[in-house]
Amino acid sequence: MRLANTPQIALVFGLAVVLLGSTQPVQAQETGFVKEFGTMWTFDAPPLDYWNATYDFRPDQAWLDHVRLSTARIPGCSSSFVSADGLLLTNHHCARRCISAASTPDSNYQETGFVARSFGEEKQCPGMYADQLQSIEDITDRIRNAVTASDPATQVQQRDSMMAQIRNECNESTGLNCQVVRFYQGGMYSLYRYKRFTDVRLVMAPEGQAAFFGGDPDNFTYPRYDLDMTLFRVYENNAPRQTDHFFTWSDYGAAEGDVVFVIGNPGSTGRLLTMSQMEYLRDVQYPAQLAGYERQLEVLRVVAARSEEDRRANENRIFGLENSHKAVSGYLTGLLDPTIMAKKKAFEADFRGRIAADPTLQAKYGAAWDAIAEVQQELAQIAAQRSFYGFGGSQLLGTAGLVVRLPEFQGERLDAIKSQLMRAGPFDVQAEQMTLTAQLHAAKAALPEGDPFLNAVLNGRTPEVVAEELISGTHLGDTEMRGSLVEGGPGAVAASDDPMIVLARTINPMRLEIGERVAALNATVAANTELVGQAIFAAYGKSLPPDATFTPRISDGVVKRYPMNGTVAPYKTTMYGLYARAEEFDHQDPWVLAPRWKERRDQLDLSTPLNFVSSNDIIGGNSGSPVINREAEVVGLIFDGNIEMLPNRFVFTDEISRSVSVHSAAIIEALRKIYDAERIADELQGVGR
Amino acid sequence: MRLANTPQIALVFGLAVVLLGSTQPVQAQETGFVKEFGTMWTFDAPPLDYWNATYDFRPDQAWLDHVRLSTARIPGCSSSFVSADGLLLTNHHCARRCISAASTPDSNYQETGFVARSFGEEKQCPGMYADQLQSIEDITDRIRNAVTASDPATQVQQRDSMMAQIRNECNESTGLNCQVVRFYQGGMYSLYRYKRFTDVRLVMAPEGQAAFFGGDPDNFTYPRYDLDMTLFRVYENNAPRQTDHFFTWSDYGAAEGDVVFVIGNPGSTGRLLTMSQMEYLRDVQYPAQLAGYERQLEVLRVVAARSEEDRRANENRIFGLENSHKAVSGYLTGLLDPTIMAKKKAFEADFRGRIAADPTLQAKYGAAWDAIAEVQQELAQIAAQRSFYGFGGSQLLGTAGLVVRLPEFQGERLDAIKSQLMRAGPFDVQAEQMTLTAQLHAAKAALPEGDPFLNAVLNGRTPEVVAEELISGTHLGDTEMRGSLVEGGPGAVAASDDPMIVLARTINPMRLEIGERVAALNATVAANTELVGQAIFAAYGKSLPPDATFTPRISDGVVKRYPMNGTVAPYKTTMYGLYARAEEFDHQDPWVLAPRWKERRDQLDLSTPLNFVSSNDIIGGNSGSPVINREAEVVGLIFDGNIEMLPNRFVFTDEISRSVSVHSAAIIEALRKIYDAERIADELQGVGR
Repeated sequence: MRLANTPQIALVFGLAVVLLGSTQPVQAQETGFVKEFGTMWTFDAPPLDYWNATYDFRPDQAWLDHVRLSTARIPGCSSSFVSADGLLLTNHHCARRCISAASTPDSNYQETGFVARSFGEEKQCPGMYADQLQSIEDITDRIRNAVTASDPATQVQQRDSMMAQIRNECNESTGLNCQVVRFYQGGMYSLYRYKRFTDVRLVMAPEGQAAFFGGDPDNFTYPRYDLDMTLFRVYENNAPRQTDHFFTWSDYGAAEGDVVFVIGNPGSTGRLLTMSQMEYLRDVQYPAQLAGYERQLEVLRVVAARSEEDRRANENRIFGLENSHKAVSGYLTGLLDPTIMAKKKAFEADFRGRIAADPTLQAKYGAAWDAIAEVQQELAQIAAQRSFYGFGGSQLLGTAGLVVRLPEFQGERLDAIKSQLMRAGPFDVQAEQMTLTAQLHAAKAALPEGDPFLNAVLNGRTPEVVAEELISGTHLGDTEMRGSLVEGGPGAVAASDDPMIVLARTINPMRLEIGERVAALNATVAANTELVGQAIFAAYGKSLPPDATFTPRISDGVVKRYPMNGTVAPYKTTMYGLYARAEEFDHQDPWVLAPRWKERRDQLDLSTPLNFVSSNDIIGGNSGSPVINREAEVVGLIFDGNIEMLPNRFVFTDEISRSVSVHSAAIIEALRKIYDAERIADELQGVGR
Repeated sequence: MRLANTPQIALVFGLAVVLLGSTQPVQAQETGFVKEFGTMWTFDAPPLDYWNATYDFRPDQAWLDHVRLSTARIPGCSSSFVSADGLLLTNHHCARRCISAASTPDSNYQETGFVARSFGEEKQCPGMYADQLQSIEDITDRIRNAVTASDPATQVQQRDSMMAQIRNECNESTGLNCQVVRFYQGGMYSLYRYKRFTDVRLVMAPEGQAAFFGGDPDNFTYPRYDLDMTLFRVYENNAPRQTDHFFTWSDYGAAEGDVVFVIGNPGSTGRLLTMSQMEYLRDVQYPAQLAGYERQLEVLRVVAARSEEDRRANENRIFGLENSHKAVSGYLTGLLDPTIMAKKKAFEADFRGRIAADPTLQAKYGAAWDAIAEVQQELAQIAAQRSFYGFGGSQLLGTAGLVVRLPEFQGERLDAIKSQLMRAGPFDVQAEQMTLTAQLHAAKAALPEGDPFLNAVLNGRTPEVVAEELISGTHLGDTEMRGSLVEGGPGAVAASDDPMIVLARTINPMRLEIGERVAALNATVAANTELVGQAIFAAYGKSLPPDATFTPRISDGVVKRYPMNGTVAPYKTTMYGLYARAEEFDHQDPWVLAPRWKERRDQLDLSTPLNFVSSNDIIGGNSGSPVINREAEVVGLIFDGNIEMLPNRFVFTDEISRSVSVHSAAIIEALRKIYDAERIADELQGVGR
């Protein structure tokens, strides 16, 4: 997986931030370790006893502070400071926007890579920033005390307004970037205060081919051979930032059996979901999602086969959909795995048993699971309507839908949608017809006979006939015609007899009705999942790490081989393997070596480790996380997980799931031998420091 | 898998052979292709229409004869002639016995490899022979006509005696080695006539480390990096055999998308098994077998952990058991796969439907499936007795069992067993106790309460106590004591009060009784599976290739990548990959490079293809088969299948299952650059011919 930017794990969070003061002392972890919840520990609750018992390692507060201050969250990703002069290490795939922005008409750095030969050549990244976590404060009581109403809607209002107030106070009083973080589905609230660095410059990036060797097919998998790295430099007052809090470079890097720590910002997990929520994902949502991807892929493959131009135009979307399909299949694999589900079930039984054993807790939380289950069942019943009462399956129908929905929007949003509508098209008539036909077939198969949507849309005709009539009958492909509707206002839309607009007018009320029903059901789920989150403390204290929240976590793990396909996947790959895999596919795309790598093969020590795996607990958002040893030295750079890791979204296991990292030795070898970047390699290795 | 010699696919057939005359014309295949039955075609029924339709390839009779005469069956394996001077190509793992026999006290050729620099240095392989198929004759009618009795036992006698008669006639009249082959479980009988070459000499073998790089962990898997080859030379009248029927060497070798043919001797498949037979394997036999391996492994791992010496002494047995476990797990995976079983079920429904549609056929064959199912059910009921009423779980108990059974044997067999008994031991008391305890626990769990075996052995005591009493109480570890029993005759055995002998005396009648019952049930199964075999002709003609019989077959396939672990397994590996995998495991055993390979790395073109995969249909016995292209040139040498191929034993699929071969280019590159064997490389490539 490209941990930052696949659809399922897109983690570019709208970071709500304000300010406040004072640092919370880090508390030692005293309770046990429930493996299924993984190891995404917060910095205010590091599991010191568990680490001590497992690795004979009990870092002191200075180590923990140093490690926290040596890392930074960047948009959608993680990163770390790796020199006294502000060098910041992250993944290539976390820096794509900056690399593109730095490119010139003459040099596409995505293709050629980029190396600054001096501070002066380092190129500013517009919009890029890095957030360094300063302190954490538990504000659960303040939030809870603010919620005094008895009706849920007002409760939500009260809570949200207290969250905003705390954030604003914090921003103003500290000058930092503050964020209220909701842990355990609302079981705990913390105030996170970040220092934000906004002058971030591009120092070095390899070629896209070297960073993403193997492309989408190898994405989410291991063994891998990717130099998925980029180096930024953080500037303050137009000079490289000077700091003592950075990770020094290991002389050796990761070796088998080493204990390693990953510090980063995992985006989202669902380990506190109840069984009924997981069953809903397993039986309803994911299968439908996969079927949707498959419908789209089937059409796109036909479209792409029409011509070389069509192939190029659709290639990225096909790869993207294939990757989403791979990700969701991976989640589903986990949910279908009886061993994994048995673990989850056993945990839930234990959890509910602990609550039931105490009448007060039972009165407060005991009903939450069944309440959620009931709603999930109702959501399952209306899943087909929810999915098909809408404007999906055709870009023209989507356009008609937006036209009909114009009265729902206002202000900037309205302007944006209007200009989006004017820019729409050109539409691929053949593709439109195929996708709409497929969508209508799927609707017909999923919805019961006599369903009002089917009656309204098909009215007894076949999907083929209806799609053909609609696509050939509509004039929405005509920009002027769209303009007259967009600017003509509700009257013009209401009066239109364009068949696609007529259909969209029929569908919209159904869409709205089902949407309201779903929203109401989701509100009930939200209220009850918050109760489950509160119950977790009552039952286990803080011993379970909370679900991922795209805030800094530290995860422990071990560099370790694992069983794969009847044999063993090695703990590391080497540069030999890069050349091997390119040859194995006869240098076909996406297993193409960048030109410099081809030319300089003989200068490399091919036995240099390139990537390696460890049992750390990561997920999307962890991209760019440093992997460090006990001495807080960099031994690697997280950039992916293996395919076996996907089910960890719901239940953590480490028998065969692994994090995948760039090995620290590969970075130095490449900088020195491929990129002639001695300046940077020296800086990383502290040569002459 | 080492195709020849894992326990599940041990294929060293006792080839019953005699002589006869005349060649049968090869018949064109006219009927359709049922994929589940695979592509192990016999040479008298090549599927010319199917090949033509699929590959636009319709070889003539000369091509087919040439291909058949260019191959030879060797003990347990396959091979091919690859020069005009009788060079014979097979796998290293098919030549181990010869390589060991050729070794001297000073040079262990298993370790060092062997290269003959001249004809004179080529070393005779004692006991080795090569059988070249001359002709095939359908003798089904002669066999059937000989069976006139109505009772099954006499039928079997009549059939066997006619088979022996035909074989003897053939041997005498032709001077060839003749074999009667039973196809389709007795649905068809053919007479196969082979020319046997008995002067086979060792020409070249690589180091064991190069041939079996990756050892047991990588066995049965892909990607692979093995030079699993050996070259023999066949001599006639003390001179290299001169022949026109040999495969020339391809200039290019296998490339992606190529159509390739594998000619070899697949040993055994179960594709004609009925659903109930497969369910028995799935639900009863294989789970019990796996549990047995696990019991043994658990003890052996404890034993191996005691000391470095114990580790070395038990390493091979552990690996062997792990490999058997891997193989049976692979078969079981197929039987547990709902898609595979659905295919099988659909086929059986179609098959039975065709029989049922014709009253005559229905009367003859219709009852066979239910008859088999009934017996399988009974076999399932007594499976636990069958498995535990015996002398398993302890070498001392096994020894006692043999002593008690001595009156069952006579002649040479008796002598062999006596000397085996005298050589037995030393016995590892701790291991003995652990395995016997585990065995008794397993028996207790599997057998019903009150079972006579449990009553006799445990009599209410725990397995621990009983095992301790028996192992510490017996004197069978003492050679003299064993000698007195072996030579003392039945009287001495009957009089013995050694607790292990006493127990064996108790168990033996139970063992015999259950054995007789199983034999009777198996006879019923055999009679009915023969009916199913006959029915297959009635329903489908000869369009389905028969189950493997360790006789020459030709299988078609395509060199092709396949989906693996979320990405793609390449169609080939290269020499880069060999060095990569050694580095990935830090050169730990079994990923150790042979010294010459380490030293000569820089002389190799590392991009040389090493192994490759294709969709040909193979199984144990195919080891050493040539892979040829349409021009009948060698492009590779079969040596394994991937793990995904194991389920093919029962239902053939080629979506992800692949044969694994040594690439022809790797053989030349290694001969010239690693082994200084220019003489042999020139001969293979026809240099100067």
